[in-house]
Amino acid sequence: MTDPHDEHPRDTPGLAQLQRRLADFAAARNWQPYHTPKNLASALGVEAAELLEIFQWLTPEESARVMDDPDTAHRVADEVADVLAYLLQLCEVLGVDPLAALAAKIDRNEQRFPVGKPPGR
Amino acid sequence: MTDPHDEHPRDTPGLAQLQRRLADFAAARNWQPYHTPKNLASALGVEAAELLEIFQWLTPEESARVMDDPDTAHRVADEVADVLAYLLQLCEVLGVDPLAALAAKIDRNEQRFPVGKPPGR
Amino acid sequence: MTDPHDEHPRDTPGLAQLQRRLADFAAARNWQPYHTPKNLASALGVEAAELLEIFQWLTPEESARVMDDPDTAHRVADEVADVLAYLLQLCEVLGVDPLAALAAKIDRNEQRFPVGKPPGR
Amino acid sequence: MTDPHDEHPRDTPGLAQLQRRLADFAAARNWQPYHTPKNLASALGVEAAELLEIFQWLTPEESARVMDDPDTAHRVADEVADVLAYLLQLCEVLGVDPLAALAAKIDRNEQRFPVGKPPGR
Repeated sequence: MTDPHDEHPRDTPGLAQLQRRLADFAAARNWQPYHTPKNLASALGVEAAELLEIFQWLTPEESARVMDDPDTAHRVADEVADVLAYLLQLCEVLGVDPLAALAAKIDRNEQRFPVGKPPGR
Repeated sequence: MTDPHDEHPRDTPGLAQLQRRLADFAAARNWQPYHTPKNLASALGVEAAELLEIFQWLTPEESARVMDDPDTAHRVADEVADVLAYLLQLCEVLGVDPLAALAAKIDRNEQRFPVGKPPGR
Repeated sequence: MTDPHDEHPRDTPGLAQLQRRLADFAAARNWQPYHTPKNLASALGVEAAELLEIFQWLTPEESARVMDDPDTAHRVADEVADVLAYLLQLCEVLGVDPLAALAAKIDRNEQRFPVGKPPGR
Repeated sequence: MTDPHDEHPRDTPGLAQLQRRLADFAAARNWQPYHTPKNLASALGVEAAELLEIFQWLTPEESARVMDDPDTAHRVADEVADVLAYLLQLCEVLGVDPLAALAAKIDRNEQRFPVGKPPGR
């Protein structure tokens, strides 16, 4: 038995592989001139808002059941993909390693938020 | 010689490992009640805007040189980490696989955008 | 001759009148339970992103000509209206006077930004 | 006795007057080159997210009591002012009349949403 967190099933691509597919996709369509860091950061913000739009009128309880409806579940996955796509493309053009950045951030947050404090304060 | 896209250096954690660290981090601090899908989607939107804030007054050319300044480079990496952190936490509570969602989205976009069209139209 | 900034043409409603129309509109449809401050702030963020979406792939120069195309001009006005609508509804439920808040903010900014500094620093 | 919705107290400036103060403020500091429609739309999105940040971890009930704390009340008013400021500056550079746009939108919504339907559907 495998822990689902340990690794992705053999046929799921990794982050770096997807990042390369996105770069190839943009290059094949000559979209790179549009992909300035500023534009990609705007697009990331727009897609994050489209994800939020799904939840904007829901109660906390309704938001926890959002995957029960197949159409909404598909829409959520689609917007998650868009956010991740623009984040990876932004990292590509800036030369930022998102996994290393996140690992470093968690390290810092373990110092910054000792156990017992509420989030965001 | 290795292609930098092929794999992360041996000591960089993978996405699933970071997702588990984030879940453990929240659990140790009893933050799960705050981590409704709605709240995490809001936080994701807020962090994406903090990333955009870095670029908001820059010309396209200035935005392409944003990593030349060490302080700004650190700020960019920090906001990238925050966006990825909330995206992974949202995926965790919703049971969405972000890599599978992105792979499926790229498949669809390859059908939807034949080579030769501008983005976002 | 009238300065176009001095006053609106006689038949344009004022901000307070529009705020009341919005409140009546929501009340007539029993939408008030949805209109928590948190939900309205989310909706405001979503609409601001829809406005940004119009500009996300444009160069600075293209963005300055966005009203030349009648369809885009209509879309811009429509998203401006949505942002203002949610801002006014948020102010309504919180008891914030947006004009007084802005006047006070400009007063503070005149102290904070002496003539000669770039924005956002 | 006056209905507080009917009109602002005599010494509160109107929207057009504040819009002019903002334009004069930017001109005095030579900020106009930064004030492309694209940049102002980005700044509007960033400020809307800063407003949302106040509410992101709150329950619906807590969000309704946000003005009870003087510091938070001040922060809310300050972010409301920032959103309105960038919206007015965007309207200024684009030649959009925000009040006319909103009046037209409410007219359309009265057709689009007959009494009895939930919002956002």
